[in-house]
Amino acid sequence: MSKREITVVRTTNGKARPDPNHLGFGKYFTDHMFVMDYDRENGWHSPRVIPYQPITLDPATMVFHYGQTVFEGLKAYHSQDGRTLLFRPEKNVERLNRSCSRLNIPEVEEEAFLSGLKTLIQVDRDWIPTTEGTSLYIRPFILPTETNLRVAPASSYKFVIILSPVGSYYPEGINPVGINVEKQYTRAVLGGTGTAKTAGNYCAGYKAQQKASESGAAQVLWLDGIEKKYIEEVGSMNIFFKIDGEVVTPQLNGSILEGITRMSIIELLQEWGIPVTERKISFDEFVKAYQEERVEEVFGTGTAAVISPVGEFRYQDTKYLINNRQTGDLSKKLYETITGIQTGKIYDEFGWTVEVKSSGM
Amino acid sequence: MSKREITVVRTTNGKARPDPNHLGFGKYFTDHMFVMDYDRENGWHSPRVIPYQPITLDPATMVFHYGQTVFEGLKAYHSQDGRTLLFRPEKNVERLNRSCSRLNIPEVEEEAFLSGLKTLIQVDRDWIPTTEGTSLYIRPFILPTETNLRVAPASSYKFVIILSPVGSYYPEGINPVGINVEKQYTRAVLGGTGTAKTAGNYCAGYKAQQKASESGAAQVLWLDGIEKKYIEEVGSMNIFFKIDGEVVTPQLNGSILEGITRMSIIELLQEWGIPVTERKISFDEFVKAYQEERVEEVFGTGTAAVISPVGEFRYQDTKYLINNRQTGDLSKKLYETITGIQTGKIYDEFGWTVEVKSSGM
Repeated sequence: MSKREITVVRTTNGKARPDPNHLGFGKYFTDHMFVMDYDRENGWHSPRVIPYQPITLDPATMVFHYGQTVFEGLKAYHSQDGRTLLFRPEKNVERLNRSCSRLNIPEVEEEAFLSGLKTLIQVDRDWIPTTEGTSLYIRPFILPTETNLRVAPASSYKFVIILSPVGSYYPEGINPVGINVEKQYTRAVLGGTGTAKTAGNYCAGYKAQQKASESGAAQVLWLDGIEKKYIEEVGSMNIFFKIDGEVVTPQLNGSILEGITRMSIIELLQEWGIPVTERKISFDEFVKAYQEERVEEVFGTGTAAVISPVGEFRYQDTKYLINNRQTGDLSKKLYETITGIQTGKIYDEFGWTVEVKSSGM
Repeated sequence: MSKREITVVRTTNGKARPDPNHLGFGKYFTDHMFVMDYDRENGWHSPRVIPYQPITLDPATMVFHYGQTVFEGLKAYHSQDGRTLLFRPEKNVERLNRSCSRLNIPEVEEEAFLSGLKTLIQVDRDWIPTTEGTSLYIRPFILPTETNLRVAPASSYKFVIILSPVGSYYPEGINPVGINVEKQYTRAVLGGTGTAKTAGNYCAGYKAQQKASESGAAQVLWLDGIEKKYIEEVGSMNIFFKIDGEVVTPQLNGSILEGITRMSIIELLQEWGIPVTERKISFDEFVKAYQEERVEEVFGTGTAAVISPVGEFRYQDTKYLINNRQTGDLSKKLYETITGIQTGKIYDEFGWTVEVKSSGM
């Protein structure tokens, strides 16, 4: 057998399905996982779908010490006509490989990633929840497996995909959230790892998230790490402002994560003829527009929520109410269009969705 | 038994000892490890010395995804009179807990850390190498063990200590190294995690280290992330300059790691009456002093090398030779004094060393 051929070992001990009305996010995992290994001699090899199982690692394995990991997040949807759809998965492969490049991890071929993912989904297809708003969250990740305490890129890695049936992000409808503008802590800076989906970027935000939660806000608004002036991201989402009919989102500046939902929204807005600009936007510019009553809508974008409307910014002792804490019309239309395309309800004129057929590739 | 009492399970299958002349760094590990667990109900509990063994984790364990880890590094030395000495281990506990605080990890009591470490060393005492320049490297680390993909601090953790007999950092004598001044990549920035010993800080430096290696330099000189002007660290060491008889090291500014060797050197220099200042120092200031022939010595400091003399900086196309690529007198004296105290050869007037007795605490 070729070292590139995917082997499949099915579980003999399938798990009970979780209640589709109480899935939450990332709590339940399916019966199988996809794994492949890397070493310098063989490259990425031995792709396989195996029963979902623990990973056993020597305590000196580099993953515990120097954080050389990358991951991705995407979803599979069960369409009304019974198809299984992925949303722009090739963009996740591209981003994974950009993350790999930043972290000195060997890149993964698109074909190896996508055929592994599709085979895994085929095996666990009946785990895709079908209730409105639910989906199958897909978490590909790479970890270094070399056992050695030298501070250097590992010589061996494991690429893993696990699947988690997840609930609706908005079980009670979209609800705009309060956001704390963070001045003390920094998410990322030019020259750092902010554009990569790597583990260290996420734990770095916990302290600021704790401050936000304690002040009653749901999320953090990250400012740039240099001047603490320009808006970068909200929580782990990208952010958009609708001001005077124009949509503005921070430009990719070397520290912002390049969201695939972000990219899709820009393309949708362009298609709709709504002016959309990627540029620097300072919090001061937002405040000025706010005071002049020109701010119409603000929303975060990401794989988990798709669109998350911002109802309020809190900056020091001042609160800035957005659109009277209501979800704006554009936010609603974008949410409905993107989720409609993702779930096959709306015709996909962009060719964004990829169907996972029942068998074969 | 109290949940704080350390249990000891000895291996029945001890490993062969590695060749003391070819230990390298972090390649060999002893027969046992120390582990304790944390959950919200019990706090840190079940401290135990057990045979060195793999850690088995669900693939959805947070450590693989969001990098919420911290670690420490220190050494145990075999003294000429047969004692086992630690160097300022309480400073490692303090720093671990500062790292924990930044990463929202529950802190560890000094007593739990030190009694666990001492018990482990007692069990594996005959693993401490005795050849000149060798030591037992100690790696305490904490990883999150909760199985969940939500981006938030874990509710459960594992604290682990592993031990690695390591070789002399300078088997052929101290050798000054070339350092590449890094302008593109950033190690850390104010408000980030640079002061914490957390995994994500280390892999973030691999790209710059690769550039340095490709240009023939041994290490990276990190500049501040905001102006790319002020000197921060060298590789994963702190850095000192001797200019006109005065020793200068970058002040702790919220992005530099607070080295325990750094701290000890400052205290030694003060004791010796040599002027030492912690302040901002720009690379331009170094260049000016260099051009005026006022730079006498430059050296990095850290647990692994203790003192690592800098023989040359490379900045774009310019090379700055330090002290004609020779190890300076102060570097030598500091190296001999610190390693002399660590190994019990020099009387420890500071009370820095802590003896691990044969039994009991």
